[in-house]
Amino acid sequence: MPIQFKLLATDPACGARLGVISTPKGEVPTPAFMPVATQGTVKAMLPDWVAEKGARILLANTYHLHLKPGEDVIAALGGLHKFMNWPHLIITDSGGYQVFSLPEREISEEGVRFRTRKQGQPLLLTPESTIAIQEKLGADIVMAFDECVAYPTPHEYAKEAMERTIRWAERCKRAHGRKDQALFGIVQGSTYPDLRRACAEAIADLDLPGIAVGGLSVGEGLEVMREVLSYTVPYLPADRPRYLMGVGLPEDILAAVEAGMDMSDCVIPTKYARSGMLFTQVGRLRVSNAEYRKDRFPPDTSCGCYTCAHYTRAYLHHLFQAGEILGQTLASIHNMHFYLTLMENIRQAISEARFLQFKEEFLSAYQRQSKKTRHVR
Amino acid sequence: MPIQFKLLATDPACGARLGVISTPKGEVPTPAFMPVATQGTVKAMLPDWVAEKGARILLANTYHLHLKPGEDVIAALGGLHKFMNWPHLIITDSGGYQVFSLPEREISEEGVRFRTRKQGQPLLLTPESTIAIQEKLGADIVMAFDECVAYPTPHEYAKEAMERTIRWAERCKRAHGRKDQALFGIVQGSTYPDLRRACAEAIADLDLPGIAVGGLSVGEGLEVMREVLSYTVPYLPADRPRYLMGVGLPEDILAAVEAGMDMSDCVIPTKYARSGMLFTQVGRLRVSNAEYRKDRFPPDTSCGCYTCAHYTRAYLHHLFQAGEILGQTLASIHNMHFYLTLMENIRQAISEARFLQFKEEFLSAYQRQSKKTRHVR
Repeated sequence: MPIQFKLLATDPACGARLGVISTPKGEVPTPAFMPVATQGTVKAMLPDWVAEKGARILLANTYHLHLKPGEDVIAALGGLHKFMNWPHLIITDSGGYQVFSLPEREISEEGVRFRTRKQGQPLLLTPESTIAIQEKLGADIVMAFDECVAYPTPHEYAKEAMERTIRWAERCKRAHGRKDQALFGIVQGSTYPDLRRACAEAIADLDLPGIAVGGLSVGEGLEVMREVLSYTVPYLPADRPRYLMGVGLPEDILAAVEAGMDMSDCVIPTKYARSGMLFTQVGRLRVSNAEYRKDRFPPDTSCGCYTCAHYTRAYLHHLFQAGEILGQTLASIHNMHFYLTLMENIRQAISEARFLQFKEEFLSAYQRQSKKTRHVR
Repeated sequence: MPIQFKLLATDPACGARLGVISTPKGEVPTPAFMPVATQGTVKAMLPDWVAEKGARILLANTYHLHLKPGEDVIAALGGLHKFMNWPHLIITDSGGYQVFSLPEREISEEGVRFRTRKQGQPLLLTPESTIAIQEKLGADIVMAFDECVAYPTPHEYAKEAMERTIRWAERCKRAHGRKDQALFGIVQGSTYPDLRRACAEAIADLDLPGIAVGGLSVGEGLEVMREVLSYTVPYLPADRPRYLMGVGLPEDILAAVEAGMDMSDCVIPTKYARSGMLFTQVGRLRVSNAEYRKDRFPPDTSCGCYTCAHYTRAYLHHLFQAGEILGQTLASIHNMHFYLTLMENIRQAISEARFLQFKEEFLSAYQRQSKKTRHVR
């Protein structure tokens, strides 16, 4: 297999797992948060900063990179790692999430026909074509093409989409030829235990090097997500890395780890940063708010990131008010540091068999203030 | 005097001077290019990157910082250096350039009444108020309030504005109390030798620690600028640093140095960068052009900056096409490196008494291709 997964420890009190993904390119300690580099860049950041705090795998977007600059350009320039100056691991999604998120699409057994937002050109993505694109992009892990449905979705349609997702995964496996890439399957099935179980078992039967849970983080909320994981994770192979797609806020990530997931990706740290929303140990802080205009403290008084070491909330407030790019950059540096530190602490806690205690301590400080700003999600 | 200027060498074949400005905060080797931090940030860059390549002084804008976040906020937070995390020198302009560049303004002996573009609130800047603001901001060098006129301007009005500029400079000198700040006077007089001479002599008589030439780089072009300098510089005190305001392109800076100027500031390196225009040893390159879509070379094949060490033109092209902030950041890093390297090479050439030779060599490579893209200015 192109990647090896080694399980190092399992928390005795919950599903949390400590592990490591090994590839010729290096190791990824799990649970891992994967910063998102949709268009081949973690927005507003240098890759060095992302790697510095411990990220060893990024997620890039097949659909967007296919549109711009195109997989042939990237392949001719030596592949995505070289193109974007990222020496560690890369995972590419399959375009399946766009099935859910783009307004104009037409789904058939063959694949999905999109009309792209800006260009307006029709685009057909099939299991075979997304694998071909991903092979050219050259990521270390590639994802099967799936149909992600909205929340809520009637059982009948969720079943239809789930069964199509299984057939598409089989086609992806047949189409996938690059021996140096690991293909992960995706479990769909909306919020229905019977569908999730059937899909998990079918995808597990494909014996792929990793397995993902998709179709969450689509508006169902933390409690529903937790429930879906509770009746899905038991049917995921224990000896493969388990990837929860598109998750999430710190509290979501903690729930995912508790349920036994090993990887997740999300745009939240950088997306929130660019709107002036900072994560801190005592909750979220919207630094563009007027109350921070003269605030001489760093964004997070207990943080050691570059931003907190050098700048006040007042300066960040000013940059956002003045529309300066540096505000988005400094906020992104801080939020990325926050997320990657959280993952470091999660791994440490699992290794010391005290994950649930860590989770409670973290949330008790973090949620005191977050309640005030909960409306921002 | 709060700053000391030491003249180290004068080129035997032209006016070019090598010197050093010394202050308690450190030294600035001259000729010096001063990157512009209008709103308290060199746009799209971390200050570390600006300092790394040798910048030791930045220019910030009194008018903009007065509007946002206000000099009282900055003073309460410990002054501009601390606010923006810049340990080296800062110079603040006086708002005089806004007399020229803002559309709605009313000039009287008292000062200038502006209507700000966005807020629409009326604002009165006087010699006394601009000095008071600059004292609160806390820069190392502050500028007298002047009236910068458009090009061309009739002799009669240019004389009136120039004489007002002298009276305002006298008021600035009387108003200025901070002993740790150096106040520079500004020479106006448009393109008229008699006015430039009269103004230079009157400003020199104020015996300030430095003197600036204003009213250039307002659309007059390189040849007219060169001419104005030729009949202005002889009347500037030789033992004080001479600052040419708002200049310019590499060829303009070379002309300024040749004429005997020691400092200049300009938004061009960062402004051009943000639009995808890169400076290289063989001319300018608009990396957003389609011809660079698959170009596997770094922006400047002879450059050692972070951007050129890690990225291709194709990647930068993609970032600009995709509207990614990182494109603006990487281009800014490169252009800043280009400008600061140019200044380094200029100083080296003067120290070896071969400035004119350096200038010719530089321009002969640089202008071969620049002609093609000259329309972009």
